[in-house]
Amino acid sequence: MKHLTEYLWINTPERYQMVDITNEVQELVKKSGVKEGLCLVNPMHITASVFINDHESGLLQDWLVWLEKLAPHAPISQYKHNLTGENNADAHLKRTIMGRETTVAVTGGKLDLGTWERIFYGEFDGQRRKRILVKIIGE
Amino acid sequence: MKHLTEYLWINTPERYQMVDITNEVQELVKKSGVKEGLCLVNPMHITASVFINDHESGLLQDWLVWLEKLAPHAPISQYKHNLTGENNADAHLKRTIMGRETTVAVTGGKLDLGTWERIFYGEFDGQRRKRILVKIIGE
Amino acid sequence: MKHLTEYLWINTPERYQMVDITNEVQELVKKSGVKEGLCLVNPMHITASVFINDHESGLLQDWLVWLEKLAPHAPISQYKHNLTGENNADAHLKRTIMGRETTVAVTGGKLDLGTWERIFYGEFDGQRRKRILVKIIGE
Repeated sequence: MKHLTEYLWINTPERYQMVDITNEVQELVKKSGVKEGLCLVNPMHITASVFINDHESGLLQDWLVWLEKLAPHAPISQYKHNLTGENNADAHLKRTIMGRETTVAVTGGKLDLGTWERIFYGEFDGQRRKRILVKIIGE
Repeated sequence: MKHLTEYLWINTPERYQMVDITNEVQELVKKSGVKEGLCLVNPMHITASVFINDHESGLLQDWLVWLEKLAPHAPISQYKHNLTGENNADAHLKRTIMGRETTVAVTGGKLDLGTWERIFYGEFDGQRRKRILVKIIGE
Repeated sequence: MKHLTEYLWINTPERYQMVDITNEVQELVKKSGVKEGLCLVNPMHITASVFINDHESGLLQDWLVWLEKLAPHAPISQYKHNLTGENNADAHLKRTIMGRETTVAVTGGKLDLGTWERIFYGEFDGQRRKRILVKIIGE
Protein backbone atom coordinates (compact mmCIF):
# COMPACT_ATOMS: atom_id res chain seq x y z
CA MET A 1 0.00 0.00 0.00
CA LYS A 2 1.19 3.50 -0.85
CA HIS A 3 0.27 6.53 1.19
CA LEU A 4 0.88 10.25 1.31
CA THR A 5 0.06 12.77 4.03
CA GLU A 6 0.37 16.48 3.36
CA TYR A 7 -0.84 19.64 5.04
CA LEU A 8 -1.88 22.67 3.02
CA TRP A 9 -1.74 26.08 4.71
CA ILE A 10 -4.36 28.71 3.94
CA ASN A 11 -5.13 32.21 5.19
CA THR A 12 -8.22 33.76 3.64
CA PRO A 13 -8.43 37.56 3.31
CA GLU A 14 -12.15 37.42 4.18
CA ARG A 15 -13.80 36.07 7.30
CA TYR A 16 -16.22 34.07 5.14
CA GLN A 17 -14.74 32.73 1.92
CA MET A 18 -14.77 29.73 -0.43
CA VAL A 19 -11.48 28.71 -2.08
CA ASP A 20 -11.09 26.15 -4.89
CA ILE A 21 -8.28 23.75 -3.90
CA THR A 22 -8.82 21.08 -6.58
CA ASN A 23 -5.54 21.70 -8.38
CA GLU A 24 -3.50 21.52 -5.19
CA VAL A 25 -5.12 18.23 -4.22
CA GLN A 26 -4.64 16.83 -7.73
CA GLU A 27 -0.92 17.66 -7.53
CA LEU A 28 -0.67 15.68 -4.30
CA VAL A 29 -2.39 12.68 -5.87
CA LYS A 30 0.24 12.77 -8.60
CA LYS A 31 3.02 13.10 -6.01
CA SER A 32 1.67 10.13 -4.04
CA GLY A 33 2.08 7.74 -6.95
CA VAL A 34 -1.27 6.18 -6.02
CA LYS A 35 -3.15 4.94 -9.11
CA GLU A 36 -6.15 3.35 -7.39
CA GLY A 37 -7.30 4.40 -3.95
CA LEU A 38 -8.99 7.02 -1.80
CA CYS A 39 -8.13 10.64 -1.08
CA LEU A 40 -9.38 12.24 2.13
CA VAL A 41 -9.38 16.05 2.40
CA ASN A 42 -10.39 17.84 5.60
CA PRO A 43 -9.72 21.07 7.46
CA MET A 44 -7.95 20.56 10.78
CA HIS A 45 -10.13 23.31 12.24
CA ILE A 46 -13.70 23.28 13.46
CA THR A 47 -14.97 26.46 11.84
CA ALA A 48 -14.12 25.45 8.28
CA SER A 49 -15.29 22.89 5.74
CA VAL A 50 -13.99 20.94 2.78
CA PHE A 51 -16.79 20.21 0.33
CA ILE A 52 -17.37 19.46 -3.33
CA ASN A 53 -19.63 21.48 -5.59
CA ASP A 54 -19.74 23.76 -8.61
CA HIS A 55 -17.21 26.54 -9.23
CA GLU A 56 -19.73 29.21 -10.21
CA SER A 57 -19.25 32.62 -8.66
CA GLY A 58 -22.96 33.39 -8.18
CA LEU A 59 -23.49 30.10 -6.40
CA LEU A 60 -20.57 30.73 -4.06
CA GLN A 61 -22.30 33.96 -3.03
CA ASP A 62 -25.65 32.19 -2.70
CA TRP A 63 -24.13 29.80 -0.19
CA LEU A 64 -22.91 32.57 2.08
CA VAL A 65 -26.28 34.37 2.00
CA TRP A 66 -28.11 31.09 2.64
CA LEU A 67 -25.82 29.99 5.49
CA GLU A 68 -26.29 33.37 7.14
CA LYS A 69 -30.06 32.76 7.15
CA LEU A 70 -29.78 29.24 8.58
CA ALA A 71 -27.07 30.06 11.13
CA PRO A 72 -26.86 33.84 11.63
CA HIS A 73 -23.76 35.47 13.08
CA ALA A 74 -25.64 38.16 15.02
CA PRO A 75 -26.76 38.72 17.63
CA ILE A 76 -23.73 36.92 19.00
CA SER A 77 -25.41 36.70 22.41
CA GLN A 78 -27.85 34.10 21.06
CA TYR A 79 -25.14 31.42 21.34
CA LYS A 80 -23.79 30.06 24.63
CA HIS A 81 -20.47 29.34 22.92
CA ASN A 82 -19.88 33.06 22.58
CA LEU A 83 -19.95 33.42 26.39
CA THR A 84 -16.40 31.98 26.24
CA GLY A 85 -15.25 35.23 24.66
CA GLU A 86 -15.51 33.87 21.10
CA ASN A 87 -17.87 35.36 18.54
CA ASN A 88 -17.70 32.49 16.07
CA ALA A 89 -20.46 30.11 17.20
CA ASP A 90 -22.16 30.67 13.84
CA ALA A 91 -19.02 29.42 12.08
CA HIS A 92 -19.29 26.05 13.85
CA LEU A 93 -22.90 25.75 12.70
CA LYS A 94 -22.21 26.89 9.14
CA ARG A 95 -19.41 24.36 8.81
CA THR A 96 -21.79 21.69 10.10
CA ILE A 97 -24.18 22.34 7.20
CA MET A 98 -21.35 22.32 4.65
CA GLY A 99 -19.74 19.21 6.17
CA ARG A 100 -16.21 18.67 7.49
CA GLU A 101 -14.52 16.45 4.95
CA THR A 102 -14.72 14.83 1.58
CA THR A 103 -13.44 11.47 0.40
CA VAL A 104 -12.68 11.27 -3.31
CA ALA A 105 -11.87 8.21 -5.41
CA VAL A 106 -8.48 8.05 -7.12
CA THR A 107 -8.69 6.18 -10.44
CA GLY A 108 -5.93 5.86 -13.01
CA GLY A 109 -3.74 8.20 -10.93
CA LYS A 110 -6.26 11.05 -10.89
CA LEU A 111 -9.08 12.41 -8.74
CA ASP A 112 -12.17 10.65 -10.11
CA LEU A 113 -14.45 13.70 -10.21
CA GLY A 114 -17.48 14.45 -12.35
CA THR A 115 -17.30 17.21 -14.96
CA TRP A 116 -18.39 20.00 -12.66
CA GLU A 117 -17.11 18.68 -9.35
CA ARG A 118 -14.53 20.90 -7.69
CA ILE A 119 -13.07 20.66 -4.19
CA PHE A 120 -13.54 23.74 -2.03
CA TYR A 121 -12.23 24.94 1.28
CA GLY A 122 -15.07 26.81 3.01
CA GLU A 123 -13.86 29.25 5.65
CA PHE A 124 -16.27 30.75 8.18
CA ASP A 125 -13.83 32.32 10.64
CA GLY A 126 -10.88 33.31 8.51
CA GLN A 127 -8.16 35.92 8.36
CA ARG A 128 -5.71 33.64 10.13
CA ARG A 129 -3.53 30.66 9.16
CA LYS A 130 -5.27 27.31 8.99
CA ARG A 131 -4.34 23.83 7.85
CA ILE A 132 -5.97 21.35 5.48
CA LEU A 133 -5.04 17.67 5.66
CA VAL A 134 -4.76 15.57 2.51
CA LYS A 135 -4.33 11.82 2.99
CA ILE A 136 -4.06 9.47 0.04
CA ILE A 137 -3.94 5.69 0.34
CA GLY A 138 -3.97 3.00 -2.33
CA GLU A 139 -1.62 1.33 -4.74
CA MET B 1 -4.89 -4.50 -2.23
CA LYS B 2 -7.98 -5.19 -4.31
CA HIS B 3 -10.05 -2.43 -5.84
CA LEU B 4 -13.11 -1.98 -8.02
CA THR B 5 -14.43 1.16 -9.72
CA GLU B 6 -17.88 1.17 -11.27
CA TYR B 7 -20.29 3.83 -12.49
CA LEU B 8 -24.03 3.39 -12.10
CA TRP B 9 -26.29 5.34 -14.45
CA ILE B 10 -29.58 6.74 -13.22
CA ASN B 11 -32.35 8.87 -14.73
CA THR B 12 -35.14 9.71 -12.31
CA PRO B 13 -38.66 10.30 -13.67
CA GLU B 14 -39.15 13.10 -11.11
CA ARG B 15 -37.15 16.26 -10.66
CA TYR B 16 -36.88 15.55 -6.91
CA GLN B 17 -36.61 11.88 -6.02
CA MET B 18 -34.96 9.45 -3.61
CA VAL B 19 -33.87 6.04 -4.97
CA ASP B 20 -32.67 3.09 -2.87
CA ILE B 21 -29.44 1.80 -4.45
CA THR B 22 -28.30 -0.54 -1.64
CA ASN B 23 -28.73 -3.74 -3.64
CA GLU B 24 -26.75 -2.42 -6.61
CA VAL B 25 -23.89 -1.36 -4.33
CA GLN B 26 -23.94 -4.70 -2.50
CA GLU B 27 -23.63 -6.52 -5.83
CA LEU B 28 -20.53 -4.48 -6.64
CA VAL B 29 -18.98 -5.33 -3.27
CA LYS B 30 -19.48 -9.00 -4.12
CA LYS B 31 -18.01 -8.49 -7.59
CA SER B 32 -14.94 -6.70 -6.14
CA GLY B 33 -13.91 -9.72 -4.08
CA VAL B 34 -13.05 -7.36 -1.22
CA LYS B 35 -13.69 -8.97 2.17
CA GLU B 36 -12.37 -6.18 4.43
CA GLY B 37 -12.21 -2.59 3.29
CA LEU B 38 -14.10 0.59 2.48
CA CYS B 39 -16.74 1.38 -0.11
CA LEU B 40 -17.18 4.97 -1.29
CA VAL B 41 -20.41 5.92 -3.08
CA ASN B 42 -20.95 9.40 -4.54
CA PRO B 43 -22.86 11.12 -7.31
CA MET B 44 -20.61 12.64 -9.98
CA HIS B 45 -23.00 15.59 -10.14
CA ILE B 46 -23.40 18.61 -7.92
CA THR B 47 -27.18 18.67 -7.59
CA ALA B 48 -27.50 15.16 -6.18
CA SER B 49 -26.58 13.31 -3.00
CA VAL B 50 -25.75 9.84 -1.81
CA PHE B 51 -26.83 9.35 1.78
CA ILE B 52 -27.78 6.63 4.24
CA ASN B 53 -31.05 6.53 6.12
CA ASP B 54 -34.31 4.64 6.59
CA HIS B 55 -36.34 3.24 3.68
CA GLU B 56 -39.73 4.42 4.93
CA SER B 57 -41.97 6.05 2.36
CA GLY B 58 -43.42 8.70 4.68
CA LEU B 59 -39.95 9.79 5.72
CA LEU B 60 -38.80 10.09 2.11
CA GLN B 61 -41.68 12.52 1.56
CA ASP B 62 -40.86 14.37 4.80
CA TRP B 63 -37.35 15.02 3.52
CA LEU B 64 -38.54 16.66 0.33
CA VAL B 65 -41.03 18.90 2.19
CA TRP B 66 -38.37 19.83 4.74
CA LEU B 67 -35.67 20.56 2.17
CA GLU B 68 -38.09 22.79 0.29
CA LYS B 69 -38.52 24.85 3.48
CA LEU B 70 -34.79 25.14 4.16
CA ALA B 71 -33.77 25.76 0.53
CA PRO B 72 -36.83 26.79 -1.52
CA HIS B 73 -36.88 26.46 -5.30
CA ALA B 74 -38.95 29.61 -5.90
CA PRO B 75 -38.68 32.46 -6.44
CA ILE B 76 -35.75 31.43 -8.63
CA SER B 77 -34.61 35.07 -8.78
CA GLN B 78 -33.51 34.87 -5.12
CA TYR B 79 -30.35 33.02 -6.19
CA LYS B 80 -27.49 34.59 -8.13
CA HIS B 81 -26.67 31.18 -9.61
CA ASN B 82 -29.92 31.31 -11.56
CA LEU B 83 -28.71 34.43 -13.38
CA THR B 84 -26.58 32.00 -15.43
CA GLY B 85 -29.79 30.71 -17.04
CA GLU B 86 -30.09 27.77 -14.63
CA ASN B 87 -33.04 27.39 -12.29
CA ASN B 88 -31.47 24.78 -10.03
CA ALA B 89 -29.65 26.79 -7.37
CA ASP B 90 -31.93 25.21 -4.76
CA ALA B 91 -30.72 21.77 -5.87
CA HIS B 92 -27.12 22.67 -4.98
CA LEU B 93 -28.26 23.76 -1.52
CA LYS B 94 -30.53 20.77 -0.94
CA ARG B 95 -27.72 18.41 -1.84
CA THR B 96 -25.46 20.28 0.58
CA ILE B 97 -27.82 19.48 3.45
CA MET B 98 -28.10 15.82 2.44
CA GLY B 99 -24.34 15.49 1.87
CA ARG B 100 -22.41 14.43 -1.24
CA GLU B 101 -21.07 10.99 -0.44
CA THR B 102 -21.07 8.10 1.95
CA THR B 103 -18.26 5.77 2.98
CA VAL B 104 -19.38 2.35 4.16
CA ALA B 105 -17.33 -0.37 5.82
CA VAL B 106 -17.01 -3.72 4.05
CA THR B 107 -16.77 -6.59 6.54
CA GLY B 108 -16.79 -10.29 5.70
CA GLY B 109 -17.43 -9.43 2.05
CA LYS B 110 -20.59 -7.41 2.73
CA LEU B 111 -21.63 -3.81 3.34
CA ASP B 112 -21.44 -3.47 7.13
CA LEU B 113 -24.75 -1.63 7.61
CA GLY B 114 -27.06 -1.45 10.62
CA THR B 115 -30.49 -3.09 10.46
CA TRP B 116 -32.30 -0.09 9.02
CA GLU B 117 -29.46 1.54 7.12
CA ARG B 118 -30.07 1.82 3.38
CA ILE B 119 -28.06 3.70 0.76
CA PHE B 120 -30.03 6.30 -1.21
CA TYR B 121 -29.41 8.40 -4.25
CA GLY B 122 -31.08 11.77 -3.66
CA GLU B 123 -31.84 13.65 -6.86
CA PHE B 124 -32.76 17.35 -6.81
CA ASP B 125 -32.50 18.19 -10.51
CA GLY B 126 -33.45 15.00 -12.28
CA GLN B 127 -35.12 13.84 -15.46
CA ARG B 128 -31.76 13.38 -17.16
CA ARG B 129 -28.97 10.77 -17.10
CA LYS B 130 -26.55 10.99 -14.20
CA ARG B 131 -23.70 8.86 -12.88
CA ILE B 132 -22.92 7.44 -9.45
CA LEU B 133 -19.38 6.33 -8.66
CA VAL B 134 -18.74 3.26 -6.51
CA LYS B 135 -15.14 2.66 -5.43
CA ILE B 136 -14.23 -0.29 -3.25
CA ILE B 137 -10.75 -0.87 -1.83
CA GLY B 138 -9.46 -3.48 0.59
CA GLU B 139 -8.36 -7.09 0.59
CA MET C 1 -3.08 -4.37 4.54
CA LYS C 2 -4.11 -4.37 8.18
CA HIS C 3 -7.69 -3.86 9.27
CA LEU C 4 -9.76 -3.73 12.43
CA THR C 5 -13.54 -3.70 12.86
CA GLU C 6 -15.07 -2.97 16.23
CA TYR C 7 -18.50 -2.03 17.50
CA LEU C 8 -18.94 0.36 20.42
CA TRP C 9 -22.19 0.18 22.39
CA ILE C 10 -23.78 3.32 23.78
CA ASN C 11 -26.97 4.13 25.67
CA THR C 12 -27.45 7.83 26.37
CA PRO C 13 -29.42 8.89 29.46
CA GLU C 14 -30.99 11.74 27.45
CA ARG C 15 -33.06 11.57 24.29
CA TYR C 16 -30.86 14.27 22.71
CA GLN C 17 -27.20 14.09 23.70
CA MET C 18 -23.68 14.58 22.37
CA VAL C 19 -20.95 12.21 23.65
CA ASP C 20 -17.20 12.61 23.05
CA ILE C 21 -15.86 9.24 21.83
CA THR C 22 -12.39 10.36 20.69
CA ASN C 23 -10.50 8.39 23.33
CA GLU C 24 -12.34 5.16 22.56
CA VAL C 25 -11.61 5.52 18.84
CA GLN C 26 -7.96 6.36 19.53
CA GLU C 27 -7.63 3.18 21.59
CA LEU C 28 -8.94 1.15 18.65
CA VAL C 29 -6.43 2.77 16.29
CA LYS C 30 -3.68 1.67 18.66
CA LYS C 31 -5.16 -1.84 18.88
CA SER C 32 -5.34 -2.10 15.07
CA GLY C 33 -1.58 -1.67 14.66
CA VAL C 34 -2.29 0.58 11.65
CA LYS C 35 0.33 3.33 11.31
CA GLU C 36 -0.86 4.93 8.05
CA GLY C 37 -4.43 4.62 6.86
CA LEU C 38 -8.05 5.67 7.29
CA CYS C 39 -10.47 5.31 10.18
CA LEU C 40 -14.22 5.31 9.48
CA VAL C 41 -16.60 5.93 12.39
CA ASN C 42 -20.37 5.77 11.96
CA PRO C 43 -23.49 5.00 13.95
CA MET C 44 -25.32 1.89 12.74
CA HIS C 45 -28.60 3.71 13.39
CA ILE C 46 -30.46 6.29 11.37
CA THR C 47 -31.35 8.73 14.12
CA ALA C 48 -27.78 9.36 15.28
CA SER C 49 -24.65 11.00 13.92
CA VAL C 50 -20.89 10.78 14.24
CA PHE C 51 -19.31 14.16 13.66
CA ILE C 52 -16.19 16.14 14.48
CA ASN C 53 -16.18 19.48 16.20
CA ASP C 54 -15.17 21.36 19.33
CA HIS C 55 -15.65 19.96 22.85
CA GLU C 56 -17.06 23.12 24.40
CA SER C 57 -20.11 22.69 26.59
CA GLY C 58 -21.88 25.88 25.50
CA LEU C 59 -21.52 24.93 21.86
CA LEU C 60 -22.93 21.46 22.48
CA GLN C 61 -26.04 23.16 23.89
CA ASP C 62 -26.14 25.61 20.98
CA TRP C 63 -26.33 22.71 18.55
CA LEU C 64 -29.36 21.18 20.21
CA VAL C 65 -31.20 24.51 20.31
CA TRP C 66 -30.31 25.20 16.68
CA LEU C 67 -31.28 21.75 15.43
CA GLU C 68 -34.63 22.08 17.19
CA LYS C 69 -35.27 25.26 15.19
CA LEU C 70 -34.28 23.72 11.85
CA ALA C 71 -36.02 20.38 12.43
CA PRO C 72 -38.53 20.69 15.29
CA HIS C 73 -39.79 17.65 17.18
CA ALA C 74 -43.32 19.00 17.70
CA PRO C 75 -45.97 18.95 16.46
CA ILE C 76 -45.20 15.33 15.66
CA SER C 77 -48.16 15.26 13.24
CA GLN C 78 -46.23 17.49 10.82
CA TYR C 79 -44.22 14.46 9.65
CA LYS C 80 -45.64 11.58 7.63
CA HIS C 81 -43.02 9.27 9.17
CA ASN C 82 -44.76 9.62 12.52
CA LEU C 83 -47.94 8.08 11.06
CA THR C 84 -46.07 4.76 11.40
CA GLY C 85 -46.41 5.06 15.19
CA GLU C 86 -42.93 6.58 15.59
CA ASN C 87 -42.43 10.08 17.00
CA ASN C 88 -38.82 10.46 15.90
CA ALA C 89 -39.04 11.92 12.38
CA ASP C 90 -37.20 14.99 13.65
CA ALA C 91 -34.29 12.76 14.74
CA HIS C 92 -33.80 11.55 11.15
CA LEU C 93 -33.67 15.17 9.97
CA LYS C 94 -31.39 16.36 12.78
CA ARG C 95 -28.95 13.55 12.03
CA THR C 96 -29.04 14.56 8.37
CA ILE C 97 -27.78 18.05 9.24
CA MET C 98 -25.06 16.68 11.52
CA GLY C 99 -24.02 13.99 9.02
CA ARG C 100 -23.83 10.21 9.40
CA GLU C 101 -20.15 9.39 9.48
CA THR C 102 -16.65 10.73 9.66
CA THR C 103 -13.47 9.47 8.04
CA VAL C 104 -10.27 10.40 9.87
CA ALA C 105 -6.68 10.02 8.72
CA VAL C 106 -4.37 7.77 10.73
CA THR C 107 -0.79 9.05 10.67
CA GLY C 108 2.11 7.67 12.71
CA GLY C 109 -0.28 5.30 14.49
CA LYS C 110 -2.60 8.06 15.73
CA LEU C 111 -5.78 9.85 14.68
CA ASP C 112 -4.50 12.82 12.66
CA LEU C 113 -6.78 15.46 14.21
CA GLY C 114 -6.34 19.21 14.57
CA THR C 115 -5.84 20.74 18.01
CA TRP C 116 -9.53 21.23 18.73
CA GLU C 117 -10.99 18.41 16.70
CA ARG C 118 -12.90 15.83 18.74
CA ILE C 119 -15.09 12.97 17.55
CA PHE C 120 -18.67 13.03 18.84
CA TYR C 121 -21.59 10.67 18.83
CA GLY C 122 -24.74 12.76 18.38
CA GLU C 123 -27.88 11.02 19.60
CA PHE C 124 -31.32 12.32 18.67
CA ASP C 125 -33.49 9.38 19.80
CA GLY C 126 -31.65 7.93 22.73
CA GLN C 127 -32.33 6.12 25.98
CA ARG C 128 -31.75 2.75 24.33
CA ARG C 129 -28.74 0.66 23.30
CA LYS C 130 -27.13 1.63 20.01
CA ARG C 131 -24.00 0.62 18.13
CA ILE C 132 -21.16 2.62 16.59
CA LEU C 133 -18.94 0.99 13.96
CA VAL C 134 -15.20 1.72 13.84
CA LYS C 135 -13.32 0.39 10.80
CA ILE C 136 -9.61 1.02 10.40
CA ILE C 137 -7.62 0.03 7.30
CA GLY C 138 -4.03 0.72 6.35
CA GLU C 139 -0.59 -0.62 7.07
